[in-house]
Amino acid sequence: MKISELSRRSGVSVATIKYYLREEVLPAGEPTSSNQASYDEGHIRRLRLIRALIDIGGLSLARVRDALAATENDELPLHDAFGAVMLGLDDPGTIAAADDTFGEVRDWLAERRWTIAPDAPATRRLAELIDILREFGLPVTADSFTAAADSAEATAIDEVHYAHDQPDRIASVEMMLIGTVVYERAMAMVRRLALEAASARIENSARIEDSGRR
Amino acid sequence: MKISELSRRSGVSVATIKYYLREEVLPAGEPTSSNQASYDEGHIRRLRLIRALIDIGGLSLARVRDALAATENDELPLHDAFGAVMLGLDDPGTIAAADDTFGEVRDWLAERRWTIAPDAPATRRLAELIDILREFGLPVTADSFTAAADSAEATAIDEVHYAHDQPDRIASVEMMLIGTVVYERAMAMVRRLALEAASARIENSARIEDSGRR
Repeated sequence: MKISELSRRSGVSVATIKYYLREEVLPAGEPTSSNQASYDEGHIRRLRLIRALIDIGGLSLARVRDALAATENDELPLHDAFGAVMLGLDDPGTIAAADDTFGEVRDWLAERRWTIAPDAPATRRLAELIDILREFGLPVTADSFTAAADSAEATAIDEVHYAHDQPDRIASVEMMLIGTVVYERAMAMVRRLALEAASARIENSARIEDSGRR
Repeated sequence: MKISELSRRSGVSVATIKYYLREEVLPAGEPTSSNQASYDEGHIRRLRLIRALIDIGGLSLARVRDALAATENDELPLHDAFGAVMLGLDDPGTIAAADDTFGEVRDWLAERRWTIAPDAPATRRLAELIDILREFGLPVTADSFTAAADSAEATAIDEVHYAHDQPDRIASVEMMLIGTVVYERAMAMVRRLALEAASARIENSARIEDSGRR
């Protein structure tokens, strides 16, 4: 299809599509003449992914490019591609975790026998978040996340298999990204709803107690 | 303390502090002369909170102001303050969920007997995220989040009680915000680590199988 149809079907403006082509987050189309190219369903899927990563994941275009770089190297084993995606999703330069807390998280991961790349930004980011929670007086340790880790672990193998089982390697990497960024937002919303429901329950039982007293 | 000391102790520049004062996300200090004011520990805590909401939660300053507005109305019961915080955290105008999916999420919440405000953005946002996952071919329904909801529910009552038990109402609202925004990022990091560990485990067992075949 032409760029105008790609724009219409994806809901992304032609100007933005051209910008993504220049920034190399969207692969070039098949040239049909000196100034035209043809695009396919893969481009629509990729545009949808880019929008999800930016709008839902709050990623910058530079992060999107880094996370998607793993789709380009056909030689890379899928596990390494997955590691590259995870590396691309966060910017280690923006993380300020205390060394002690970082060590505490590393030890906790080792105890769980989770094999994590030493430079995985999620380890350092989790340590930073623990530091922040402590600054606010919350009695949090790495071990506070053991129940959450157990429950994430219970579904993670199936999720990774699902990504591996996609028809091609680009689809596998894209599925890993969607499974990471969109799912984690969904989990966050479930948590917000659970907190609101708990707050309503507490308020309600306080009211019943109160009217019982009269 | 003077604004210079507030800046030094919080790590936030004087210019940014003045901006937050003008934007009314940071309460004014106690005036000490016509052009000076005195700040206290509450201001340091508030600055830390604002930075966490912006840097970790990815909130705009307008979202931060909306979420913090609930600290100002002393008459508001804590549950309503909590609802206001949740309303402030997301912008419903940016959510595009299909009506069917929104209804599906509403029904699922009703089945769980979770009392959620009809205008809670998290309901609509969760529906939108389900739509996106489906666009990528993932077989997701509201019910797919039942295990996550069970596990969030198990700790939510304690978390809300913890916020209620803070020494004053401002601290309660601040704790709700931190408990929501910082914790959900931490949970997301735990999920990323679980996925990476699962990917390593799958790659490893493939390698063992492979060498067994030789």
